[in-house]
Amino acid sequence: MIANTPQPPYYAVIFTSIRSEIVAGYGITADEMVALASEQAGYLGIESARDEIGITVSYWENEEAILNWKRHAAHQIAQQKGRDMWYLAFKTRVCRVERDYGFSSAKSI
Amino acid sequence: MIANTPQPPYYAVIFTSIRSEIVAGYGITADEMVALASEQAGYLGIESARDEIGITVSYWENEEAILNWKRHAAHQIAQQKGRDMWYLAFKTRVCRVERDYGFSSAKSI
Repeated sequence: MIANTPQPPYYAVIFTSIRSEIVAGYGITADEMVALASEQAGYLGIESARDEIGITVSYWENEEAILNWKRHAAHQIAQQKGRDMWYLAFKTRVCRVERDYGFSSAKSI
Repeated sequence: MIANTPQPPYYAVIFTSIRSEIVAGYGITADEMVALASEQAGYLGIESARDEIGITVSYWENEEAILNWKRHAAHQIAQQKGRDMWYLAFKTRVCRVERDYGFSSAKSI
């Protein structure tokens, strides 16, 4: 789903990744991290898609919330496993959302 | 591929979308828009993935480049067709990338 974020400004973390062939533990951990992120202070929403590459964008109230989530103990373990096993490469970009606009057709209601 | 962007700050446009069932013209136009965007002044790169939702992130040197691309004639036509035919809903977020970091395993080289 498209995340239902508030009026800007808020923050986005764009995580773009290329997976390895190692699947063990990946799906469960990814689901756990999405659930755990959603419980953190300052969390606003998440969007994710994968085909040749994966793009996950999480939205946050401020940079402090992003740093707290990055440092969360269970997330730290998952990040290490990501580097060791699940990802060939990734890039994380921390952004300030300046403005946004959207569209929803009558068909989608 | 993961976009090879320069040192921050730079800008990102996160375009999250839900497609309609209408496929006519979509693939060709999407490819044309990616090619055309890459020719614009200030373009830095693009990343895209789709499964249940689509996420396309384009990267730009500054906000002026983003506005120029939004107003490009061929892109305007594509945007209108997007609203009329190809998308049930979308959200566009214009962001300033404050910092980034990455990882590339020996396996990926």
